[in-house]
Amino acid sequence: GGCGTIAEVRVLVLNTGGTIGMVPQSEGLAPEANKLAGALKKIPILHDAEYAKETNLYSRLGVGEDTLVLPRSKQNKIIIYTILELSPLLDSSNMTPAEWDKIARQIEINYEKYNGFVILHGTDTMAYTASALSFMCENLGKTIVLTGSQVPIYELRNDGRANLLGALLFAGQFIIPEVCLYFYNELYRGNRVTKVNADSFSAFSSPNLPPLAKTDVDIKINWETVWRANTTKKFVIHTDVNSNVGLLRIFPGITAAVVKAFLQSPIEGVVLETYGIGNAPNNCPELLQELKNATDRGVLILNCTQCLQGTVSLVYATGKTLMDAGVIPGADMTPEAALAKLSYVLSKPGTLDEKRKMLNENLRGEITVVPVGTQITLKDS
Amino acid sequence: GGCGTIAEVRVLVLNTGGTIGMVPQSEGLAPEANKLAGALKKIPILHDAEYAKETNLYSRLGVGEDTLVLPRSKQNKIIIYTILELSPLLDSSNMTPAEWDKIARQIEINYEKYNGFVILHGTDTMAYTASALSFMCENLGKTIVLTGSQVPIYELRNDGRANLLGALLFAGQFIIPEVCLYFYNELYRGNRVTKVNADSFSAFSSPNLPPLAKTDVDIKINWETVWRANTTKKFVIHTDVNSNVGLLRIFPGITAAVVKAFLQSPIEGVVLETYGIGNAPNNCPELLQELKNATDRGVLILNCTQCLQGTVSLVYATGKTLMDAGVIPGADMTPEAALAKLSYVLSKPGTLDEKRKMLNENLRGEITVVPVGTQITLKDS
Amino acid sequence: GGCGTIAEVRVLVLNTGGTIGMVPQSEGLAPEANKLAGALKKIPILHDAEYAKETNLYSRLGVGEDTLVLPRSKQNKIIIYTILELSPLLDSSNMTPAEWDKIARQIEINYEKYNGFVILHGTDTMAYTASALSFMCENLGKTIVLTGSQVPIYELRNDGRANLLGALLFAGQFIIPEVCLYFYNELYRGNRVTKVNADSFSAFSSPNLPPLAKTDVDIKINWETVWRANTTKKFVIHTDVNSNVGLLRIFPGITAAVVKAFLQSPIEGVVLETYGIGNAPNNCPELLQELKNATDRGVLILNCTQCLQGTVSLVYATGKTLMDAGVIPGADMTPEAALAKLSYVLSKPGTLDEKRKMLNENLRGEITVVPVGTQITLKDS
Amino acid sequence: GGCGTIAEVRVLVLNTGGTIGMVPQSEGLAPEANKLAGALKKIPILHDAEYAKETNLYSRLGVGEDTLVLPRSKQNKIIIYTILELSPLLDSSNMTPAEWDKIARQIEINYEKYNGFVILHGTDTMAYTASALSFMCENLGKTIVLTGSQVPIYELRNDGRANLLGALLFAGQFIIPEVCLYFYNELYRGNRVTKVNADSFSAFSSPNLPPLAKTDVDIKINWETVWRANTTKKFVIHTDVNSNVGLLRIFPGITAAVVKAFLQSPIEGVVLETYGIGNAPNNCPELLQELKNATDRGVLILNCTQCLQGTVSLVYATGKTLMDAGVIPGADMTPEAALAKLSYVLSKPGTLDEKRKMLNENLRGEITVVPVGTQITLKDS
Repeated sequence: GGCGTIAEVRVLVLNTGGTIGMVPQSEGLAPEANKLAGALKKIPILHDAEYAKETNLYSRLGVGEDTLVLPRSKQNKIIIYTILELSPLLDSSNMTPAEWDKIARQIEINYEKYNGFVILHGTDTMAYTASALSFMCENLGKTIVLTGSQVPIYELRNDGRANLLGALLFAGQFIIPEVCLYFYNELYRGNRVTKVNADSFSAFSSPNLPPLAKTDVDIKINWETVWRANTTKKFVIHTDVNSNVGLLRIFPGITAAVVKAFLQSPIEGVVLETYGIGNAPNNCPELLQELKNATDRGVLILNCTQCLQGTVSLVYATGKTLMDAGVIPGADMTPEAALAKLSYVLSKPGTLDEKRKMLNENLRGEITVVPVGTQITLKDS
Repeated sequence: GGCGTIAEVRVLVLNTGGTIGMVPQSEGLAPEANKLAGALKKIPILHDAEYAKETNLYSRLGVGEDTLVLPRSKQNKIIIYTILELSPLLDSSNMTPAEWDKIARQIEINYEKYNGFVILHGTDTMAYTASALSFMCENLGKTIVLTGSQVPIYELRNDGRANLLGALLFAGQFIIPEVCLYFYNELYRGNRVTKVNADSFSAFSSPNLPPLAKTDVDIKINWETVWRANTTKKFVIHTDVNSNVGLLRIFPGITAAVVKAFLQSPIEGVVLETYGIGNAPNNCPELLQELKNATDRGVLILNCTQCLQGTVSLVYATGKTLMDAGVIPGADMTPEAALAKLSYVLSKPGTLDEKRKMLNENLRGEITVVPVGTQITLKDS
Repeated sequence: GGCGTIAEVRVLVLNTGGTIGMVPQSEGLAPEANKLAGALKKIPILHDAEYAKETNLYSRLGVGEDTLVLPRSKQNKIIIYTILELSPLLDSSNMTPAEWDKIARQIEINYEKYNGFVILHGTDTMAYTASALSFMCENLGKTIVLTGSQVPIYELRNDGRANLLGALLFAGQFIIPEVCLYFYNELYRGNRVTKVNADSFSAFSSPNLPPLAKTDVDIKINWETVWRANTTKKFVIHTDVNSNVGLLRIFPGITAAVVKAFLQSPIEGVVLETYGIGNAPNNCPELLQELKNATDRGVLILNCTQCLQGTVSLVYATGKTLMDAGVIPGADMTPEAALAKLSYVLSKPGTLDEKRKMLNENLRGEITVVPVGTQITLKDS
Repeated sequence: GGCGTIAEVRVLVLNTGGTIGMVPQSEGLAPEANKLAGALKKIPILHDAEYAKETNLYSRLGVGEDTLVLPRSKQNKIIIYTILELSPLLDSSNMTPAEWDKIARQIEINYEKYNGFVILHGTDTMAYTASALSFMCENLGKTIVLTGSQVPIYELRNDGRANLLGALLFAGQFIIPEVCLYFYNELYRGNRVTKVNADSFSAFSSPNLPPLAKTDVDIKINWETVWRANTTKKFVIHTDVNSNVGLLRIFPGITAAVVKAFLQSPIEGVVLETYGIGNAPNNCPELLQELKNATDRGVLILNCTQCLQGTVSLVYATGKTLMDAGVIPGADMTPEAALAKLSYVLSKPGTLDEKRKMLNENLRGEITVVPVGTQITLKDS
């Protein structure tokens, strides 16, 4: 395997659970431990048994049965991937910050050993986990791709095979130093996505940022959108993010009592899902007073729109009333990213003012800081 | 105007406020009373002054300066519309069930006098109001269209003129016996829409039902989707809907304490925005217990997905745990429609069981009741 | 295999060539004979070797190595498919009416023996062949699906596996009595498609008719669009279609000389690709005279738009000048369908007037005959 | 008008005819001379009569009744536009290279006097004219925007007002030194568009290049896509382009006789619309010989795909047979752009080899010259 060996790359696949590896049980679908690697080995596009045998892969690399190898790619890479399962495997509905820590620690432990990382995860909370990991991974220099599927890999028609294959090709072949999410032929920035469709293979959308890449007949990467880490610091993970955060959506008729109840201790951070470009009722002084009481005692409240797409302006006077109550405009962050950012920022050292400032800064590409003024001609650019 | 008179139809335009009629004030845009009719008169596509004069419209019909007339349409109709303003004009962020009542009462008062109705409304809560009115209008036999705009009608480039014109053409020329919402060339069922874009003329989406109609070079109505009222009962409005309702979105790490706080009295109905096809954490007994405590004491909890699109199944065992806690599957209702339906159902007479049953019934086309089984050939249909 | 046997269905896969089965050769990709069945047998989603063995499939049915079996489908069907190769395998650029005849004859020979038919075909001329077969198959009562791929089934990332699997599921499980085309998750009416993208998996579009079906997590068939054959006649194929037909696209500056040269004998039918809704220069009498000369001597000229989407009206006066020259309005037929229809109609018995009439009739769902007048309310429908 | 005067800009609107200004006549819609300016003056969003009066516009600038003024724009510009009509006004079906010359000459005559240019044109051949003008305008340094409409500006619902307004805003406020086409909220590079829909306001598409700009609530210009003229040469027009060109579309069964007839003298250039990525029948020696005969005698044949989207590769061996016959790969040029480029190149001085080379060069952004190799990481870019 002389020539072949040269082009080999290693990817760690962290299996956290989710539909992709689920099998029918008496109570519906459920994940089954230690089954995935064996199943993938039977799928020719996901394991090249011949190559493994001819190149003595297992003895040569000292790896076990949880390691597989993709057939040679169009870019002439041999991607060798090792599946590491979280125990227990989880339905993503049950994900919490404690599981985010477990995932991040596995990335940290294996960071130097692998070229890239794939995280298998249920779709239900994948956008939340991707957002959280994007903040928890500081000074990231390798590609991390979350993926999963709407239909288990064991069914006749399923999206799991293609999603896993694509994720492996990105993690193994390209340096996109972000926590990404790959689904149905598109690679997104992880903290920009939201699950938009419960019933379709096309489950995710990145409403305020174009995809980082698309896979079609060819793989097309939008390098201008890929995050440019302007740091040479060492990769490190930040764990133990703050859990005292929540999402509160404004609706017609919402009362001061509901707001007060939601904001009560131990809540330290809230994403307020407002109308349109950041609006809330401004003719209900009791309600605004409850928000002000909370921000006065140090609760961080981020104003995000309940619209799928759009921006809560940092510049204009819209939502002036909310800003007077101490609410921070969240620009074009998704609720998922905003919630994760609150958890992260609240757990970092610093004064309240420093934390408020961090929430408006672009830490991981999760927010668009809009330039002011109109460009009239190319010369201005 | 002999011939012309024959084809005349009357539309009531109820102006509740919103961006469409806003003018710049010191504190940003704000609605200004008694200004819209005068402004519209200067726009030739929205007022045919010549026709009004030639046919002695004002003296002939005994109408005042708040009545305008569209130029003759392609369908050869003369649409005469009268603008009636709510006082005060409202920013739609401040809409509450009390305003829904005021709107509904105006429809009732004027129901016989007009062929159709247009409601001008801010975009922020238009989907909520449209949903509420769809339930509050019982046995509706005329077309009601809500519309508005993202940019005031006074600006150079704006969407208000086209939205108003389209709404008038639908209300004046077609019998679509629904509370509709018209925006950016599409007519939607009002209780199916949600505002998806805070920054674009294309602000609304009807994720789980195709539009009722599209306006392009021609107006194309999808008659198969239009609601078939199978009743001959008299039109009546139902007001005083229940306000003790709320929206609660599930997120990773949500605690039983947050749920308990939100569900406390006087809350009587809650839309639970769950993951994917209706999932919530099922490994947190305290949280599930709080839900069960609430449903046991009669709180109605409707399970809707936080995904833009998709269905919380009525049939499959998904979200079984939530059903065991007394939570009602909400199928493909939007959160806006589900909230309005809870307000409506809670205010109707009946036992708790009857109300739970109503929530799963298709009252106004707001929910899709899915047939079981696979169709193999045309003969089955 | 008692129970299993009951649900077995048989599909014939006619492999005509095309990218799906191509392998790299010295001169680029080329089809290789007798290789496909063997390759497909190694792909678990396309062949269930265990089922074949357990149920003694080969001896039980008396079939050979060119027969494979899909894993049991969600609809509980076992689809057994037999691959029959045309010899030689063809690059679809080289398809001609002679090959259409060969394909149609194989359908006829095997019509009673199989439940449905899949035709593997190159993408370049698939829309032409689908159109031609739709006319050549008279009184069709079974499902015929053309498919292929943009990337060979032997490459790591390819669309061939999914396209073949989907085509088999439609042909084996549903009675859609049409010549269909399945590509990238959509099933189209074959005489409505055109290849719109040379570089993408999403290669086809049906611009003037919605897809017959979509495959996502579930298979959704739009039964209202499926062709209703109102006949009980026996299936028969019509071969030897007329080859003296051509496509001529109008462009600014086109001369009478070019038109005359193109229309010279032995041409008997021409699709004239005009501008917009059927327009051509009307200030060039020589050019119009050449068209009139041709129609006068019996050449059938069909007016289709060179726009991807739209209709050359049968009703309005547009293109009046062309009609005066004897040109027949082609409504919303694609150029591919119009060309195939000309070939078919020219080879059927009948007078010139009868043939002109057939061109405007809806023979296989290839043309939309638009009703006149506006529907105002549901009662009209 | 002190302050106002400072921000005034001048735009020339060249009215060539087309639907936008058509009025019903006995024989259907037809353009009417000297009517447009008067009609536009009555539309408030297209003429600010008050500003004209208050600032003594007509006497101050010495302009006549064919000059109008837009209301002040969001960018604080006052756009004064003068309508100059071609005589006679033309249905765009009748456009020929002679009319392209007339348009180009008007641009040249008025080039220094105006900040930008709008050309009103019928939609049928707008893509051809835009392509031709893009080549004919050498060293362009100002914005030229073609626009028109699907429905006359005199009808109640029409796209003419918005298209004209948008075109004026681009021509008057931004320096986009290209021949552009603006339609239905998108600004395209003129030589990249094709008319894709005969029946819809959304009539154009730019299949192989994203729009240069979009107008929504805000105007968003994609400056990275705007053409960077790397020249300081003086603007000059090139007229008298070669008319001996044509479009020939390949279809199954096309014969050598048809090809020979089409390629006969005086044809000097042909766009061959091939299948997919540039394929044609390669098993028909007579047909290939006819192509070779033509190229041998100096006919320039450009290979473009008949697919709406995609590329006829310059690099790979596809269509090798055609290249052996002397056919030139046309990459991702539209047929419209390729035809115009042939007309232009054939009329420029130079040897046949120099002309063949020009056809493959990127002269006006009409073709994508693809870089070779795969980018793996940001550092490569």
